[in-house]
Amino acid sequence: MLPTGSRGPNVVAFGGGHGLYATLSALRHVTDNLTAVVTVADDGGSSGRLRTELGILPPGDLRMALSALCDDDEWGHLWRDVLQHRYVTDGPLNNHATGNLLIAALWNLLDDPVKGLDVVGRLLNVHGRVLPMSNVPMDIEADVDDNGHHKVIRGQSLVAVAPGRVEQVRLIPESADAHPEVLGAIQDADWCVFGPGSWYTSVIPHLMLPEIRNALKNSSTKILLALNLTNDVETSDMRHADHVTSFVKYSRGITPTVVLADPTSIDDLSALDEAVDAVEARLVMRQVNQAGRGDVHDPLRFAAALRDAFEGTITDVSRAD
Amino acid sequence: MLPTGSRGPNVVAFGGGHGLYATLSALRHVTDNLTAVVTVADDGGSSGRLRTELGILPPGDLRMALSALCDDDEWGHLWRDVLQHRYVTDGPLNNHATGNLLIAALWNLLDDPVKGLDVVGRLLNVHGRVLPMSNVPMDIEADVDDNGHHKVIRGQSLVAVAPGRVEQVRLIPESADAHPEVLGAIQDADWCVFGPGSWYTSVIPHLMLPEIRNALKNSSTKILLALNLTNDVETSDMRHADHVTSFVKYSRGITPTVVLADPTSIDDLSALDEAVDAVEARLVMRQVNQAGRGDVHDPLRFAAALRDAFEGTITDVSRAD
Repeated sequence: MLPTGSRGPNVVAFGGGHGLYATLSALRHVTDNLTAVVTVADDGGSSGRLRTELGILPPGDLRMALSALCDDDEWGHLWRDVLQHRYVTDGPLNNHATGNLLIAALWNLLDDPVKGLDVVGRLLNVHGRVLPMSNVPMDIEADVDDNGHHKVIRGQSLVAVAPGRVEQVRLIPESADAHPEVLGAIQDADWCVFGPGSWYTSVIPHLMLPEIRNALKNSSTKILLALNLTNDVETSDMRHADHVTSFVKYSRGITPTVVLADPTSIDDLSALDEAVDAVEARLVMRQVNQAGRGDVHDPLRFAAALRDAFEGTITDVSRAD
Repeated sequence: MLPTGSRGPNVVAFGGGHGLYATLSALRHVTDNLTAVVTVADDGGSSGRLRTELGILPPGDLRMALSALCDDDEWGHLWRDVLQHRYVTDGPLNNHATGNLLIAALWNLLDDPVKGLDVVGRLLNVHGRVLPMSNVPMDIEADVDDNGHHKVIRGQSLVAVAPGRVEQVRLIPESADAHPEVLGAIQDADWCVFGPGSWYTSVIPHLMLPEIRNALKNSSTKILLALNLTNDVETSDMRHADHVTSFVKYSRGITPTVVLADPTSIDDLSALDEAVDAVEARLVMRQVNQAGRGDVHDPLRFAAALRDAFEGTITDVSRAD
């Protein structure tokens, strides 16, 4: 998909879980110069159990990012499938992902999260690099207004499904160091991409690390915010416009250069227009979802939309006019 | 270690666990034309738990054989270490070997034990090939005379440590099919190597499969029996000479071409001489153990001894004179 000899723009994609998987599945068509930065606050499922049993970073979202970037040949696909394979048993292995166990072993042997991820990357011959946002496992805590009752919910897996309106989220520890290589990647980036993904548990946590915010401020990188196709429980009360406002709130004033939205999913176009206008961003509207599955990204449409956004095209709905 | 351009003799090594690991660590210096055939009766430790939880062949001895044959570079060593890595936790993963979990995932994905092992072989760039003796998980059952009390002990892990004298061992199921590729390997072999290793639980099981005995009978392969340096609990009453007799008993008359023994470990040389003589084999005596660790094979000494045995040297103690 890339013109011969071109590596494409230097892109850093922030997220976690399925949202980041979708972004990376698209971005691999757009550039070879790609770094994924992954949240480390997961505390559910296989990752949560390994985090507790082994005292390690939750490996699941990192595994998914590596899988999204696997080489597009038989070997790459086979090892992607091995990493993603989950045991189905009546015993204690049930639902563990093989890749999580493999990453855990490499971390134990190499005693460095990024070295371990690089080895898995070499195994899959990945296009790009995968980094944890921090070397410190984190927790997400949210203030939730549940029909007038104020609740404090702790843990990514609980926040993701808590009924009520999220008023504020925090990372614990609050001011952990970002991974140094993440800061270097931001410094060198042409574009930093946020979203799609679970808003408070996958996208926003990156903006809550002071070092990441500072790096974004001090870099000449442009920022793309890719809005979600649907709302999760945690954002059930939020319109697309509110995501733009929320981004600027948690980034403490860092504004996106481009907001990418799918016209087939927009809940309130004039509100979105207004919110994008207010932060002097450019709104790029492209269909990026699958025919018949409006809630799922189509990697090729999403890739083309990202290239349009990065390069600019005459059909952009631009705030400049 | 191999002369340039030479692949060495076609060797099939039968065993399981640490004994086979020692044989393969030596044989990889002697030939590139190497097949390991591994018992599938283990029911203890990580393998036993996976066998029960997932209903698969016990992967541990297969993993060890693959590890012994890994490529001798950084990548091969790293993945050998990953395969051999065991989790140390207070939870259900404790003592599981990473390679066992990886092999289990590949078996589930590829639905063919040998295809799964070949993939791990390719990952490690192994020198040779690793096959299970059968596609059917097996059990070992032993009649044991414990101070005059007759006991029937079932399960490899229990047989291996049962006090008393093993009178007879059986495989359950008794006449399972050997893996077809094992039969082909025997057909093509220049040498089939049995031992060292736990006698009744790693070495003898191969001879109990009728198809393997028939293949040995119908092949022009020569047979080498490498005697143990020390006795396990299961053979605490057996002299080296008794191992030779036991081999011929369980093979139902198939005799070794060469018996390889370490002169520093022989318990009764004249009895051994007599037993080897009785089956018209050639006795090759070489120190194969480590200085200061008489119970552990030295890979280079063992390799040189195997080459001596395969090629014949003027210093052999030969039964032909």
